[in-house]
Amino acid sequence: MIGCENSKKSYSDSNKEKCLSDDVINLDQGDPTAFQEYWMKKKDRCTVVIPAWDLMSYFSDTTNVCWFLEPELEKAIKALHGAIGNAATEERYIVVGTGSSQLCQAALFALSSLSKVKPVSIVVAVPYYSTYVEEASYVQSSLYKWEGDARTFDNKGPYIELVTSPNNPDGTMREPVVNRREDGKVIHDFAYYWPHYTPITRRQDHDLMLFTFSKITGHAGSRIGWALVKDIEVAKKMVHYLTINSIGVSKESQTRATTILNELTKTCRTQSESFFEYGYEKMKSRWERLREVVESGDAFTLPNYPQAFCNFFGKTISTSPAFAWLGYKEERDLGSLLKEKKVLTRGGDRCGCDRKYVRVSMLSRDDDFDVFIHRLATIKDLKCNQP
Amino acid sequence: MIGCENSKKSYSDSNKEKCLSDDVINLDQGDPTAFQEYWMKKKDRCTVVIPAWDLMSYFSDTTNVCWFLEPELEKAIKALHGAIGNAATEERYIVVGTGSSQLCQAALFALSSLSKVKPVSIVVAVPYYSTYVEEASYVQSSLYKWEGDARTFDNKGPYIELVTSPNNPDGTMREPVVNRREDGKVIHDFAYYWPHYTPITRRQDHDLMLFTFSKITGHAGSRIGWALVKDIEVAKKMVHYLTINSIGVSKESQTRATTILNELTKTCRTQSESFFEYGYEKMKSRWERLREVVESGDAFTLPNYPQAFCNFFGKTISTSPAFAWLGYKEERDLGSLLKEKKVLTRGGDRCGCDRKYVRVSMLSRDDDFDVFIHRLATIKDLKCNQP
Repeated sequence: MIGCENSKKSYSDSNKEKCLSDDVINLDQGDPTAFQEYWMKKKDRCTVVIPAWDLMSYFSDTTNVCWFLEPELEKAIKALHGAIGNAATEERYIVVGTGSSQLCQAALFALSSLSKVKPVSIVVAVPYYSTYVEEASYVQSSLYKWEGDARTFDNKGPYIELVTSPNNPDGTMREPVVNRREDGKVIHDFAYYWPHYTPITRRQDHDLMLFTFSKITGHAGSRIGWALVKDIEVAKKMVHYLTINSIGVSKESQTRATTILNELTKTCRTQSESFFEYGYEKMKSRWERLREVVESGDAFTLPNYPQAFCNFFGKTISTSPAFAWLGYKEERDLGSLLKEKKVLTRGGDRCGCDRKYVRVSMLSRDDDFDVFIHRLATIKDLKCNQP
Repeated sequence: MIGCENSKKSYSDSNKEKCLSDDVINLDQGDPTAFQEYWMKKKDRCTVVIPAWDLMSYFSDTTNVCWFLEPELEKAIKALHGAIGNAATEERYIVVGTGSSQLCQAALFALSSLSKVKPVSIVVAVPYYSTYVEEASYVQSSLYKWEGDARTFDNKGPYIELVTSPNNPDGTMREPVVNRREDGKVIHDFAYYWPHYTPITRRQDHDLMLFTFSKITGHAGSRIGWALVKDIEVAKKMVHYLTINSIGVSKESQTRATTILNELTKTCRTQSESFFEYGYEKMKSRWERLREVVESGDAFTLPNYPQAFCNFFGKTISTSPAFAWLGYKEERDLGSLLKEKKVLTRGGDRCGCDRKYVRVSMLSRDDDFDVFIHRLATIKDLKCNQP
């Protein structure tokens, strides 16, 4: 089932109009609005109520290294990782951030501040999350320096490798590639290491792991992320960064994240209620529709992902990444081609790669996703040698 | 009326215990918990209720330069400034931040990025808000460089002067001191330019003005600040910083700030309900108690503030800053002396000044303030020449 024609029954009126009209569809950012329908069905169940006198102080727990982390959020994070089995939380410090972007910068600050030699090189294997380039370079820090592709990196001296697994933009499982233990540090970004996107094959157990609320449940507006950090000195330096950068993190968002993460944990083993069951089916269905369009023509490519046994679901499942890494079979700027069809995507060049690739968000609202599939279908049979 | 003995009727049991015990009282940070009692009395009036499906997107208004600013918050900010008359909002861009600390850094980034010559010198007249030093130096940016006291600054080239008025830590009204118009930019921090702290003598109308929710109503935990920015290029660069730094600002906090700011505006002319009437009386009463202790001995000094006509209250009022800039009459480390009495304050040296001064938060809870006054009274008669 592809395109508008075959799925009209599920369309809202606004969607019908979009199919007929030529609205711009923005799949550049990964705004995870796909999951809103799940939360609509919860009705009042995870509603938060905050009276005016509550959550007024800067401080959440002055005895915690991360003094602005709400204790209930800490418990909720540990409980969820325990229930899903995707990451170890024992003997680790939890540092909360205004999204994982702020935490990534806190980690770059912490690791480079603790390095004897500065600036520390920052590397990531291509294709990489384009925002890493900006995060590592915009303030022109003397502590660290963006050095690009980890695979071609051969500078001497200390370095930090960012490893996103599953990877943004291409959905592959990643390991560090530089592996010079004596002077290398690794930041593991596990934003997408959740069972609706990828099989949970092991309990991750690294020194510095980042997670974000946005990409689990779709609550991007809350700007909540967390780091699991083994070394107390690194955790302290990260907290130092967050203290100067924003004097902590919104308590309202922490409260809401607590409520919603607790709901995930509570319902994760009840098939009819589980967010992860819902999310897995939703992502799988979208990927099937996308692959059907791509495979029915000869213009586009998509990565193939091996199936694997998921410890959480207890069965072998497929991978359905949050982004599609769509390629064009000949040398052509695919982003421009899609832009002509009024579909905005992120060009592969921004990810350190070729413009024949684009990153397409798979987390848009249903109506935008449907329009995307419809428009892609109209160009899938283009001859590759067309101008 | 000073100390515990004379005001026991208003004490909670925990406070009685604190007077008898020797708990450490932390008046170092300016945690504005003093105002919680006002919000307790509101009961459910400003309670926010957020269902799980709401506020999920990164985006608030894609047509706004500040695309992550909730339109209702923008309206609430404009309405409040209009009602109080403390700042012009016309022909300005509003940029929301995770507290005004993040906005200050966004402003340093924006103004220095737009400067032809880098690094840009950052200066502030002493005594200054100690966090400015950290904000201007922690990431070791090549865009700007902390140069300390504005009064002794004589470097050539571009500079940014931070002007906090009323000033943190000493409560004085401030103007820029460098005044080299050809290559200088000014960031006006008006965190405390509200009628419960100081007479509103004019409607401020500068290029770049910062405000924070924390110090108006006491909602520090929300981490909401805003900038009023004249130049669209500066506003865009600030938004660029905030986009990379944290991909915007918590929607939950923006929603709560909207509700509470609207309540301030709605009730500001009803004497029995107005937060500013309440806040003014509270701060005035605390300052009277503090001055009574200080003036009854010969050890301490406090700044004197001229009375002035407040356009908001329509009468001549006194100044009651959020911090007391307490001095010792002889050369001695006042912070250490108070620490012996288990009162934590911020040393004057951190504000670019002498250790004979300390910054004391006047915004603590009642019980902590009472204990502070009590302990200060026990040392006010110390001979200055004691070791």
